[in-house]
Amino acid sequence: MRKESRLIQWIWRIILVTALFFMGFIVGWFAKPTHPRTTNNSASTKYLTEFLEEIQPDKIREHLRKFTRLPHLAGTEQNLKYAEQIQREWKDFGLDSVEMVPYDVLLSYPNKSQPNYISIVDQLGSEIFNTSLAEPVPEGYEDVSDIVPPYSAFSAKGQPEGDLVYVNYGRTEDFFQLQREMGINVTGKIVIVRYGRIFRGNKVKNAMLAGAKGIIMFSDPADYWAAGVQPYPDGWNLPGGGAQRGNVLNLNGAGDPLTPGYPAKEYTYRFSLEEGVGLPKIPVHPIGFHDAIHLLKNMGGQIPPNNWKGGLNVSYRIGPGFTDEFKNQKVRMNIHTNNQVTRIYNVIGTIRGALEPDRYVILGGHRDAWVFGGIDPMSGAAVVHETVRSAGKLLSKGWRPRRTMIFASWDAEEFGLLGSTEWAEDNAKVLQERAVAYINADSAIEGMYTLRVDCTPSLHTLVYDLTKQIASPEEGEEGVSLYESWHKRDNWTNDRDAPRISKLGSGSDFEAYFIRLGIAAGRARYTKNKAVARVRGGLIFLLADSQLLPLSANEYAGSLRKYAQSIAQLAQRHPEELETFEVSFDFLFSAVENFTVAARGFHERLKTLNTADPLEVRVMNDQLMYLERAFIDPLGLPGRPFYRHVIFAPSSHNKYAGESFPGIYDALFDIENSADPERAWMEVKRQISIAAFTVHAAAMTLTPPA
Amino acid sequence: MRKESRLIQWIWRIILVTALFFMGFIVGWFAKPTHPRTTNNSASTKYLTEFLEEIQPDKIREHLRKFTRLPHLAGTEQNLKYAEQIQREWKDFGLDSVEMVPYDVLLSYPNKSQPNYISIVDQLGSEIFNTSLAEPVPEGYEDVSDIVPPYSAFSAKGQPEGDLVYVNYGRTEDFFQLQREMGINVTGKIVIVRYGRIFRGNKVKNAMLAGAKGIIMFSDPADYWAAGVQPYPDGWNLPGGGAQRGNVLNLNGAGDPLTPGYPAKEYTYRFSLEEGVGLPKIPVHPIGFHDAIHLLKNMGGQIPPNNWKGGLNVSYRIGPGFTDEFKNQKVRMNIHTNNQVTRIYNVIGTIRGALEPDRYVILGGHRDAWVFGGIDPMSGAAVVHETVRSAGKLLSKGWRPRRTMIFASWDAEEFGLLGSTEWAEDNAKVLQERAVAYINADSAIEGMYTLRVDCTPSLHTLVYDLTKQIASPEEGEEGVSLYESWHKRDNWTNDRDAPRISKLGSGSDFEAYFIRLGIAAGRARYTKNKAVARVRGGLIFLLADSQLLPLSANEYAGSLRKYAQSIAQLAQRHPEELETFEVSFDFLFSAVENFTVAARGFHERLKTLNTADPLEVRVMNDQLMYLERAFIDPLGLPGRPFYRHVIFAPSSHNKYAGESFPGIYDALFDIENSADPERAWMEVKRQISIAAFTVHAAAMTLTPPA
Repeated sequence: MRKESRLIQWIWRIILVTALFFMGFIVGWFAKPTHPRTTNNSASTKYLTEFLEEIQPDKIREHLRKFTRLPHLAGTEQNLKYAEQIQREWKDFGLDSVEMVPYDVLLSYPNKSQPNYISIVDQLGSEIFNTSLAEPVPEGYEDVSDIVPPYSAFSAKGQPEGDLVYVNYGRTEDFFQLQREMGINVTGKIVIVRYGRIFRGNKVKNAMLAGAKGIIMFSDPADYWAAGVQPYPDGWNLPGGGAQRGNVLNLNGAGDPLTPGYPAKEYTYRFSLEEGVGLPKIPVHPIGFHDAIHLLKNMGGQIPPNNWKGGLNVSYRIGPGFTDEFKNQKVRMNIHTNNQVTRIYNVIGTIRGALEPDRYVILGGHRDAWVFGGIDPMSGAAVVHETVRSAGKLLSKGWRPRRTMIFASWDAEEFGLLGSTEWAEDNAKVLQERAVAYINADSAIEGMYTLRVDCTPSLHTLVYDLTKQIASPEEGEEGVSLYESWHKRDNWTNDRDAPRISKLGSGSDFEAYFIRLGIAAGRARYTKNKAVARVRGGLIFLLADSQLLPLSANEYAGSLRKYAQSIAQLAQRHPEELETFEVSFDFLFSAVENFTVAARGFHERLKTLNTADPLEVRVMNDQLMYLERAFIDPLGLPGRPFYRHVIFAPSSHNKYAGESFPGIYDALFDIENSADPERAWMEVKRQISIAAFTVHAAAMTLTPPA
Repeated sequence: MRKESRLIQWIWRIILVTALFFMGFIVGWFAKPTHPRTTNNSASTKYLTEFLEEIQPDKIREHLRKFTRLPHLAGTEQNLKYAEQIQREWKDFGLDSVEMVPYDVLLSYPNKSQPNYISIVDQLGSEIFNTSLAEPVPEGYEDVSDIVPPYSAFSAKGQPEGDLVYVNYGRTEDFFQLQREMGINVTGKIVIVRYGRIFRGNKVKNAMLAGAKGIIMFSDPADYWAAGVQPYPDGWNLPGGGAQRGNVLNLNGAGDPLTPGYPAKEYTYRFSLEEGVGLPKIPVHPIGFHDAIHLLKNMGGQIPPNNWKGGLNVSYRIGPGFTDEFKNQKVRMNIHTNNQVTRIYNVIGTIRGALEPDRYVILGGHRDAWVFGGIDPMSGAAVVHETVRSAGKLLSKGWRPRRTMIFASWDAEEFGLLGSTEWAEDNAKVLQERAVAYINADSAIEGMYTLRVDCTPSLHTLVYDLTKQIASPEEGEEGVSLYESWHKRDNWTNDRDAPRISKLGSGSDFEAYFIRLGIAAGRARYTKNKAVARVRGGLIFLLADSQLLPLSANEYAGSLRKYAQSIAQLAQRHPEELETFEVSFDFLFSAVENFTVAARGFHERLKTLNTADPLEVRVMNDQLMYLERAFIDPLGLPGRPFYRHVIFAPSSHNKYAGESFPGIYDALFDIENSADPERAWMEVKRQISIAAFTVHAAAMTLTPPA
């Protein structure tokens, strides 16, 4: 018995030991995380709060002052100095790397020894009136040198002389009206148009197409004065001596005119100036309305319809030329602007992603300015600077985003988005594969009384979610979210009960990323700079640090439906031709339906995703990332190889306006203008077919991959 | 003491219990795999062996017999029947899904009631000689209907009549020689050329450019007879009544001529026949040499140089027209071939990947044949069929590849690679993001005495590694690997001591995948069908199932260096112009150097990769997968928007030959031919710059992503 009891005791001991060991084993097994590098979402949320809180208005003001002390036109020494300073400070803020990336692009400057101006000349050829050579210098700025006088960058050189014709805003429809209704041919004439409504480069192109030998653009108070506001320096309305600088290229996304499609590097082949993309062949010059009055006041010819009349005390007669009394007087343009290949500098800063270093979220904005850039672009650049500082602070606390963040200070935006486009061309292949989103940071401040957001539909949800987490900066709105404040002021009435978000057009540095490469993009502006910083910063933070990409295919589906309806409605202006040429939008609608179903299915599957499995997460994130890419047609829009987004691009008639289904839109626009209606309608059909295909193909990217 | 000792005993017990539990915990913690779904590499190797062993020559023979009983031209009922049978059998073999994917493309058939032929007519217009309407029927095939007579698919209709001019192979250089050295203008003439050396479509294009109003192509024994072999049916030389069918399009990768760039679906806009891509504007017809003798024997004009003479017992005079004795006789072509939009069917089968379902490895080959397709394509299709059967067998044993495998039976390859190109267009967006590699399976069997492989450089290592694991199928080579057998027979002497691998050209279904989309691609052929099956099958197995993609950037670097040297050498034929126009290849060489360094660094990092981390593995695999994509230029080669691979594409002068740096190659080719040498050399410079940029950009994809 003794032995037996001992045996039993031993058996018990062994069982106990085994059980204890086994218990330990089980606990150890389950205690170990399956995927140790899964992001901790609550930590990410905490860091977001810290990140947004760290953004300080005082600092933004400081950055803005620092970078607007001196004029810093692209290609000048001062703009390089600012670039070097930004590089130094971003390094100090703690970014992993900050590089200076140069390109040699075509820029354009007035000739310092031969100023540009416009004259009225008498029959002897004597200049009896000349427009001003510079803007009046505001008080306190008398000692600043290097203020470039108003000019049209990339204007052709020349001294054309002739009669003036006034063509309103210089839009396609204005030239049609001039030629067809007023019976006036501008061949060999100099046209004068007012600024506004469309991109100035389109005005120049229209003038060239109509045969003009020069074009003068002026800023009319009807377009540049707000009621009850004094002109600068007493108020913020445009003074009569102020003229709008700007480039007059028709690049359609080509970047550097001499190296379309490729980065402007040492080894890059350059076209000659004659072959360059989008360079106007006629002289162009901008003037203020004080000067414009002198050119307009004695004009003869027809009195135009009221909507051609601006706010000056002149009759806005069409011409050609002056009234009989002054009929011996002509207008002469004296333009000596030079094009020259010049080195520009982007500054590129990086925070390496911890888990997915090969996924990029980009915040970019330009640095170059026509003069000081107090608003455009430094109000935006100061925001980027502060965002970098705040991100650096977080890095020092041990945070590191899941994905890589890239910060960019672009050069030569004012000369045709050159810095951003060259970098996009240089990095096209990696960006295509790796870029999650591009957030643009041009002028942060605009005369808007609430937040203004333009972005791709897949970002809608994120913008709404984020703005709900940011406090309204408006006085008397304590405890109110930015979302509520925005919603109250700018509801998207017709479409849904939510704050209005607009389509992206062009005219700033997101262009190459969005319209050429198909990277989800957005921009935000507001008179309240800190709120803008938090929106821009919050967007890149959440895009870079969320385990699941905060992009919505459902929102894209909803927008596509709206756009399809609206373009079909536009076509309905021609009901007979739609029937004659058998033009139908049915295939586009069924593609949108297909996309809607695919998007819904995708988001359903997302709900049951095993977020502990890094590959499963990556597969679905890739589908979200590549959704925007699916709307890119490598063949480009007709005649515009660098505008490749089938859903969003500017119309051919106005670079500033973002159109949906731009291929169809342009084809419909051309109907009016075509000598061969059947051919024109076939092009509409072709464009509908391309749109339907693209939407179907995009839907396919959202279905389970196998 | 008693109490104390008890206490001590209890302490010991607690320590023991804790220690045991802790030991268990530690063991449990470490026993649990970090990433439970990591592929088991030794299991994969075992499955590879089973997969290759399962491939049986008897079965291949059986598949081949089954699918060559009846003619199955694209667009015919029989070819649809075979498609349905393949779909059924692939389902039975166990694929996860097998789908029939139709497109409506432009095909071309002889008019059944008005046969095509060529006549000699006398001065009264009477046909005194007509070429045969069909090939002689071999014994045993008397009852087979639906054998399409020899014709040139997509020939223009027409009955041109005129004098013949003989232009050798109809190459660019032949026409130059004719015009410049022999002083003969073919405008308004009918040209007769022999088959061979270049793609027939290029001959037709050259004839059109030279102004000919018709073109006749014949197969000359000099090019289609092997010494000491009897003509069919006594041996395998081409009989005099045999004529080569084939399409005469100049598609340059466009796919369906009416829907370039987009899949030919119900909703797709179709160009008119006049606008279609690559359709010849003149009648074209192929004849055998029995008929050719009749056309050639009475020709007058100059006696050509010896290298223009073929193997027929005629003098191969150039013409134009017949000798004086027969000068009233003319040649008339009677061509009534019809173009018509016709439905075709691809069969697409899928095995879903276990871990990375969104990564695709494709094995595709065509099914349509001009007649029975005993070699082209069914020797290859039988191999695909057997590969699918073997993969299905493995699936039933519980295996599932890491990545998705896609098997394709393409339609209408003979009509311009239409089935494969339309599917590539349809799926371009997902393929661009997800396709790892495309392995082509056209005719498996060719008159080669050893293995013949054409593939992208990144596949070289894999091909070598795989063939070392496959036994030589040659008699008397027991225990010898396929690699050794191949190496012995076809050493890559000049470049390295290894079996020769060639560049991919065009002329089969890999074209859209490789040259348009930039997907790593390869093909393998051999007279030994089972070995071909094992090579093709082994390639897709390893590409789909290896944890790390078996692609080599180092091999690409080595090839780029070789290609750069060879194109620079070609340019050296014009040393003076290189100096005059400052043409240098230095930038290209430094780009290659940059690529070489990046590739080496990449493979170094690969050695220290933590293969237990699925995201780290995926990041590097993605770099490997996207390497080929980096060589794609979305702008395409000059005038060829669908040939977009900067490193590999056919020359503009011969679709069959794959050139390296085709943009530079074509620009150099055009030097000879240009009226403006400066402009032509500027194009050479531009192409060098594009090549340098592309190689730099590809290098960038291999550096650490952040």
